[in-house]
Amino acid sequence: MTVRFGLLGAGRIGKVHARAIGSNQAARLVAVADAAEQAARDISDAYGAEMRTIDQIEQASDIDAVVICTPTDTHADLIERFARAGKAIFCEKPIDLDVGRVEECLAVVEQTGAALMVGFNRRFDPHFMAVRKTIDEGAIGTVEMVTITSRDPGPPPIDYIKRSGGIFRDMTIHDFDMARYLLGEEPVSVSAHASVLVDKAIGEAGDYDSVSVILETGSGKQALISNSRRATYGYDQRIEVHGSKGMVAAENQRPVSIEVANEKGYTRPPLHDFFMTRYTEAYANEIAAFIAAMSAGRKASPGGADGLAALRLADAALLSAREGRTVRL
Amino acid sequence: MTVRFGLLGAGRIGKVHARAIGSNQAARLVAVADAAEQAARDISDAYGAEMRTIDQIEQASDIDAVVICTPTDTHADLIERFARAGKAIFCEKPIDLDVGRVEECLAVVEQTGAALMVGFNRRFDPHFMAVRKTIDEGAIGTVEMVTITSRDPGPPPIDYIKRSGGIFRDMTIHDFDMARYLLGEEPVSVSAHASVLVDKAIGEAGDYDSVSVILETGSGKQALISNSRRATYGYDQRIEVHGSKGMVAAENQRPVSIEVANEKGYTRPPLHDFFMTRYTEAYANEIAAFIAAMSAGRKASPGGADGLAALRLADAALLSAREGRTVRL
Amino acid sequence: MTVRFGLLGAGRIGKVHARAIGSNQAARLVAVADAAEQAARDISDAYGAEMRTIDQIEQASDIDAVVICTPTDTHADLIERFARAGKAIFCEKPIDLDVGRVEECLAVVEQTGAALMVGFNRRFDPHFMAVRKTIDEGAIGTVEMVTITSRDPGPPPIDYIKRSGGIFRDMTIHDFDMARYLLGEEPVSVSAHASVLVDKAIGEAGDYDSVSVILETGSGKQALISNSRRATYGYDQRIEVHGSKGMVAAENQRPVSIEVANEKGYTRPPLHDFFMTRYTEAYANEIAAFIAAMSAGRKASPGGADGLAALRLADAALLSAREGRTVRL
Amino acid sequence: MTVRFGLLGAGRIGKVHARAIGSNQAARLVAVADAAEQAARDISDAYGAEMRTIDQIEQASDIDAVVICTPTDTHADLIERFARAGKAIFCEKPIDLDVGRVEECLAVVEQTGAALMVGFNRRFDPHFMAVRKTIDEGAIGTVEMVTITSRDPGPPPIDYIKRSGGIFRDMTIHDFDMARYLLGEEPVSVSAHASVLVDKAIGEAGDYDSVSVILETGSGKQALISNSRRATYGYDQRIEVHGSKGMVAAENQRPVSIEVANEKGYTRPPLHDFFMTRYTEAYANEIAAFIAAMSAGRKASPGGADGLAALRLADAALLSAREGRTVRL
Repeated sequence: MTVRFGLLGAGRIGKVHARAIGSNQAARLVAVADAAEQAARDISDAYGAEMRTIDQIEQASDIDAVVICTPTDTHADLIERFARAGKAIFCEKPIDLDVGRVEECLAVVEQTGAALMVGFNRRFDPHFMAVRKTIDEGAIGTVEMVTITSRDPGPPPIDYIKRSGGIFRDMTIHDFDMARYLLGEEPVSVSAHASVLVDKAIGEAGDYDSVSVILETGSGKQALISNSRRATYGYDQRIEVHGSKGMVAAENQRPVSIEVANEKGYTRPPLHDFFMTRYTEAYANEIAAFIAAMSAGRKASPGGADGLAALRLADAALLSAREGRTVRL
Repeated sequence: MTVRFGLLGAGRIGKVHARAIGSNQAARLVAVADAAEQAARDISDAYGAEMRTIDQIEQASDIDAVVICTPTDTHADLIERFARAGKAIFCEKPIDLDVGRVEECLAVVEQTGAALMVGFNRRFDPHFMAVRKTIDEGAIGTVEMVTITSRDPGPPPIDYIKRSGGIFRDMTIHDFDMARYLLGEEPVSVSAHASVLVDKAIGEAGDYDSVSVILETGSGKQALISNSRRATYGYDQRIEVHGSKGMVAAENQRPVSIEVANEKGYTRPPLHDFFMTRYTEAYANEIAAFIAAMSAGRKASPGGADGLAALRLADAALLSAREGRTVRL
Repeated sequence: MTVRFGLLGAGRIGKVHARAIGSNQAARLVAVADAAEQAARDISDAYGAEMRTIDQIEQASDIDAVVICTPTDTHADLIERFARAGKAIFCEKPIDLDVGRVEECLAVVEQTGAALMVGFNRRFDPHFMAVRKTIDEGAIGTVEMVTITSRDPGPPPIDYIKRSGGIFRDMTIHDFDMARYLLGEEPVSVSAHASVLVDKAIGEAGDYDSVSVILETGSGKQALISNSRRATYGYDQRIEVHGSKGMVAAENQRPVSIEVANEKGYTRPPLHDFFMTRYTEAYANEIAAFIAAMSAGRKASPGGADGLAALRLADAALLSAREGRTVRL
Repeated sequence: MTVRFGLLGAGRIGKVHARAIGSNQAARLVAVADAAEQAARDISDAYGAEMRTIDQIEQASDIDAVVICTPTDTHADLIERFARAGKAIFCEKPIDLDVGRVEECLAVVEQTGAALMVGFNRRFDPHFMAVRKTIDEGAIGTVEMVTITSRDPGPPPIDYIKRSGGIFRDMTIHDFDMARYLLGEEPVSVSAHASVLVDKAIGEAGDYDSVSVILETGSGKQALISNSRRATYGYDQRIEVHGSKGMVAAENQRPVSIEVANEKGYTRPPLHDFFMTRYTEAYANEIAAFIAAMSAGRKASPGGADGLAALRLADAALLSAREGRTVRL
């Protein structure tokens, strides 16, 4: 069985998913929709997909699943429409910036019985999957402390910042999901500190660019998250899990791993420049997992509840940082 | 322009090239030929290629180029046939195990003006390319000493060994090509030592499994090559170039780069299991380079002369090891 | 000029300092005092020092400086006595577990004009010193975020825990000092989470064994500290500083740095087993800095004010963890 | 029992041994002899040793052992004199540059029953010792191939070169000893290539500065040695042993192990600047092993036969390089 896809949104992340679908032998990209015609055409040309409107895709009988890569404020509406249209849905994070709206949307998903997977791509990175597998095999005993370092190479445009819901909902949300994935237990309290150290304009837009967060679970497990909107040496993505019997860590990845030595020392090249190159395999694995779940009639994971849980942590962290207090969930 | 390919041979390395062609947007795999029907069918199904005979491919007007992945003893004949048929040719190494036969074959290529590229895939590994680029940029000054460590995870079947032409022509030949590529100057003398340390059956088949080679160029640059047919920790592929101003090295690659620590220490997973996974990107880049050269009307490199030069080094090394003497070229 | 030392306390850390003094050509260990006669004799024999009482050392005219390695609850009294006796004083951290008592003691030091250095040995580790030097040279721009991972190989005896003042005053205090040293700015707020994950008996003794702390300075710089009383892979001591132009990190140290590869992967030995081996050079550098300051008539650093500042952070962290709130200083 | 030492020669390596003796609690440096008075006085002052002539040390009843650090051409004479004088002897490598003279000298050692240890310091490096221990424990199975990379930071003065006996006897000799130590079997054939790539003046002095050597043992084990007189990135000292069950490697050491990341990549500092800092622990361990052997009445190892074996390999390598042929021993 080949899963027939419609792609909603042909921007940066849409292209990433188009490539993942295009190189998956169990999938075919049938249609792409985007108001920006050239972006849609590029994908159409590259993968032999038709250019259609969202309405046409909604009504199409030759589409089994959609990938939602449109702006965040359209996600919840589109999920509801395509859930009602009986399509399987893969939606980029977040479902919405508002917890109440996410809850409404998930109620529709529940009622319609639609398959919904949320795009926390990092769960599908082979290195992070190996970390999780190491935990599952018992090699480090009981998980005690998770440390996540996540720094973007540089800040996005201020316009993006303004629509992003803020750093906790836009950037840290991936780390909240990763912390949940690795802790294996829900956080019950959050302490966050947030500053503007990278670019004053980010502060003027009401957001932060440098944050530190501690999550604590009911049994006292802890997760530390360190975020910055700028790392001169590339896209810094590290996780480390400390347990009763040992430790497992996933190091950074670089596109080229040579080392040059001279009188100044030994130098390795910078890290990947951003998520499109760093997480190429993760995006391919993610769509493959979505397809595999569809084929097997299983629920795809992470699902709507995971999206909601991460958003709640983001809201709690924002409250913690703003009011300078530990927030209990 | 899309380059239309015929694939001759659907075995292990044939599959690797089929995948590289299949994922290259400037190429299309039109036909595949293999006496082993199931192998041909697998590739046919996966890439939408027709199953044809070699004769049919030779005469086809819808084929621009062939990739020769058949057994070594057919390479020279096929190169000659397809050179005469006006096709561009990508041939897996070696062209032939006999220098005289290679010279004859290259004469035909010369006469027909055919485009011929020889499959020294390692030249297209992104890490080794970065080593070469570092040299070209002058970052390590003048090249003085090249060190190549190349160990297979385990020996091939004895039947393969018997037909292989011996370790120097089958395995070290890649390192001879890499040494030439990095030295930037032709070796003029060779000292080789060869032993049977891994498997006595290899010795009984008249071959060696563990070899050390020194190459020296006219100006005194040196290359050291260390080969073993068995490395318990995976496919060991390292190069290091020492120059007047510094050193550049390409480290081993692993499919998953985590580290697990416990009371026994810090453990990283083994290396890639063999060339198909280690050199995935190299194979894709190699075919891309072949296509790019065709499109640009340039000679693809490495060509027939490179194949011949590496074979001559292999013959010299064998002579050196057998007779216990340094051999001058 | 040779500085003549009296050592007060011949226990584990006393031995470390005796060795540092013994191998410093500008110093001589003249006397050692300890109620445990065998411990004192061991040091006396090894370094040719006399065994004396604390009173004798206090009144001795052949002693320029003392190193206080007695139990914590004697530190403040001894500092006051030797300050009045006109000796230079090196005192192991902490000065006292009570901020008020520390303030009294420092007032005496102030009045007497005594030289007082406090034993934050990590400031003298060559790797951490190189981190600081990198910052001072401007190589990473403005410091933004400091990350400190500090894990003991295993918990101390419960008796020690009971007298220790708790993990924040006993263990994290080193990290608070390191954070101050690297941030270059005083923290103004602290959020700490603390759990008992390693050993219930630690919890029953009223202490924690696993803590996470965020410090924030007035300008929004942040420091993250992760502590555990147990790391199966050795004494885990890492620092990383992220700045506007780059990042600098000091990795863990191991006594032997080989790597063994086999079918299970690549394994490096565990880390140093604890501070005596990990910080051998730091202890030697520390005493050398104390001696150098004395010789130059400079104030030794870190001094009493640094000891007090770290203790205040420890108290604030304990309050934060106990009451589940961010504490402002 | 304290071993009472006389030091012959107070130059660079003499100072290294004086420090090792000075910090060993089972040893005392009683006397130092050097025609260069200031050099002798420096050591005398630092360690409380008397300045004596070689004759005085030879006849002294308060000297148990001598450390010979004088110029190479005096080694054999001094060994004979002190063997006859009944002193234990530690002699820096080489015993002599001439195999015949070494044999004569060792005959005297044999007749007198003197204890003689030769200064192959690298056998006592903790990292290389751990490599050997790993082999002895069977962790890599049977040794098959040893790879030694050994590069000096820069060439010595031409005057030194002229008296050195050439690179094979002066520099590679350490690697020949290390190869013997790790192979566990004597080499029976040698192929060496040698060039002048670093400094023409070295060639004009009749020596080489860049050499590659293959050693082969009777059972076919192989060792590869790569030497250069210049490495811009520091004192490059690596060994790797490949066996039937795995591989063990000792990486380079650096005085400070931090990493600085910025837009140009990740940079670690250069290696140690030379043997005095790189092998500090090795020199201390070496003297400790000499003392321990004396105390236990055991023969110290490596002894005269090891010095002779390494010199024979050096001579064979020189012959191989000069005549362009493999040399059988």
